[in-house]
Amino acid sequence: MGEFELIKRYFLRPERAGQRDSLVAVGIGDDCALLQPRPGTQLAISCDMLVEGRHFFSDVDPESLGHKALAVNLSDLAACGAKPLAFTLALALPSADPAWLAGFSRGLLALADLHGCELLGGDTTQGPLNICITVFGEVPWVNGQSQALLRSGAKPGDDIYVSGSLGQARLALDGLRGSIKLSPKTLAHTRLRLERPTPRVALGLALRGIASAAIDVSDGLLGDLSHVLTASKVGASITLEVAIKLISNYATTTGTYEVFSSQLTKKCQLGLVLAGGDDYELAFTAPASRRGQVEAAAKQSQTCVTRIGQIDAGQALRLLDAQGQSVPNTWASFDHFA
Amino acid sequence: MGEFELIKRYFLRPERAGQRDSLVAVGIGDDCALLQPRPGTQLAISCDMLVEGRHFFSDVDPESLGHKALAVNLSDLAACGAKPLAFTLALALPSADPAWLAGFSRGLLALADLHGCELLGGDTTQGPLNICITVFGEVPWVNGQSQALLRSGAKPGDDIYVSGSLGQARLALDGLRGSIKLSPKTLAHTRLRLERPTPRVALGLALRGIASAAIDVSDGLLGDLSHVLTASKVGASITLEVAIKLISNYATTTGTYEVFSSQLTKKCQLGLVLAGGDDYELAFTAPASRRGQVEAAAKQSQTCVTRIGQIDAGQALRLLDAQGQSVPNTWASFDHFA
Repeated sequence: MGEFELIKRYFLRPERAGQRDSLVAVGIGDDCALLQPRPGTQLAISCDMLVEGRHFFSDVDPESLGHKALAVNLSDLAACGAKPLAFTLALALPSADPAWLAGFSRGLLALADLHGCELLGGDTTQGPLNICITVFGEVPWVNGQSQALLRSGAKPGDDIYVSGSLGQARLALDGLRGSIKLSPKTLAHTRLRLERPTPRVALGLALRGIASAAIDVSDGLLGDLSHVLTASKVGASITLEVAIKLISNYATTTGTYEVFSSQLTKKCQLGLVLAGGDDYELAFTAPASRRGQVEAAAKQSQTCVTRIGQIDAGQALRLLDAQGQSVPNTWASFDHFA
Repeated sequence: MGEFELIKRYFLRPERAGQRDSLVAVGIGDDCALLQPRPGTQLAISCDMLVEGRHFFSDVDPESLGHKALAVNLSDLAACGAKPLAFTLALALPSADPAWLAGFSRGLLALADLHGCELLGGDTTQGPLNICITVFGEVPWVNGQSQALLRSGAKPGDDIYVSGSLGQARLALDGLRGSIKLSPKTLAHTRLRLERPTPRVALGLALRGIASAAIDVSDGLLGDLSHVLTASKVGASITLEVAIKLISNYATTTGTYEVFSSQLTKKCQLGLVLAGGDDYELAFTAPASRRGQVEAAAKQSQTCVTRIGQIDAGQALRLLDAQGQSVPNTWASFDHFA
């Protein structure tokens, strides 16, 4: 199978070209794709590269990998409050394995369809497995102002929220690596969160005009939150007794929190929540006066959110115990070159 | 050196943010970059991935590699007649080597500055060396029509042109691989074409409204030209006696064609021109009535162009000898998975 046959067989869907509501004037098959942005909108752009052995295990199910490769990019759009439009895919493959390609493209395109996000084109080459996606989203201007959610808008007094749950992806990773022993049920359960993350696109859209700042949690909550603090030039305090519940938010809805809690110490749970990584939830801030609007946005997008702390005028990120006393921050965020 | 320090030290240029003529509302440092397209324009998007050992030698000068990684993407914009605006960079690195990073970013950003193409953001990760750039360009609408050059516009009777010269990059590659013996002078000379290709951006812009179809020559002339024929549903004939001169266009301007021709058989020269690859020239078509305009566009962009054949109503790509007789096409184009 040659390069062009590969693209045609697994990634080209001619029946989708020229859809009436599409902003894609020219898609796969020319030197460039052509995108026609709508008047009064900005284009949000993000790019993530996934490397075998670094971001995923070599034997991961290719359909899940296709899903995740796009999901982590959609998560960046969600954090920006952008509506997904389209993406490019660059793929380095050791060989053109039909079974792998069929699974990968199925997972990728299923998630793309779910979000109306069109594959614009890209590149395929031979090499160590590497997946690089660049994603494009739309953000409207309203009354001369961009509706994009940025990291830099948090203000003293704002509440801090996190969507969904944190820590389960990391728990699955530790389980798969063998550094922690998990019951088959817990592993199967948390593994879905590691391999099939849900980008919080609907929540990001619902938070436009409500949230003051947002980021997606990919390297660990404390590290990612600190980017918001730096960009906004503010400090924050987090109540650990509340934050720790983030590990169970997901599980309680499916009745399996008991399995988790019986296996994990409190210290371990906190580590997973604060510095787990690979969560793809949104951490965001909003004025306290907008608690009702945040609640409505969560309801509208069918995504639970938890209020875990508050922005202040300081420069530090303080962790508070149940008595309101500071606890030292000993949790490090993930860094590819540290 | 951590991931964020690496980005800050080698790729962040805060003094460039908020330039008055920039369409970049938010650049490096948030979940997404925000691009503000100008009214009445389309966005041209292209993406190329370069893999160590596949697209470049492991010991290649990192400054040249930085240049080439962007050049091959700008070449796609050129083929589309798009004005470069911005790009994202995803980089997988075995380690954060300061000397390598300094050279790479110097070569990359120098070419970016030359074309006013702003680095929007991207991703850095650990892994086998892999460089993935997605580039954005602007194409205007004029009288309700996109000015983009596409592969699909060639018409019977159109002339076929190629910019600059072909085959020297492949000659250098063969020389470096040891499959052909080149004088040090010829190797040094052709190596510049392999490692420092010049994207034909100015020519692409000058050809808007003049050329009927265009493509950039990256996998070999015949293979790339056949994409134009397929997309335009036409045939073509190429005069080999003229095409063979493409190997010397570059050299004659610097007085070194004698070096080449004394070393290469005619068959070898034809192979380099027709299926060399890595040329990053433009192959384009234009109505015969516009020969004067093509000449003017070439002059304006200071890029020589050579007329090598003609589009016809057939379905084949025919190669003609000096007597106008058909010569069998035995030249295969580069394919990553063939």
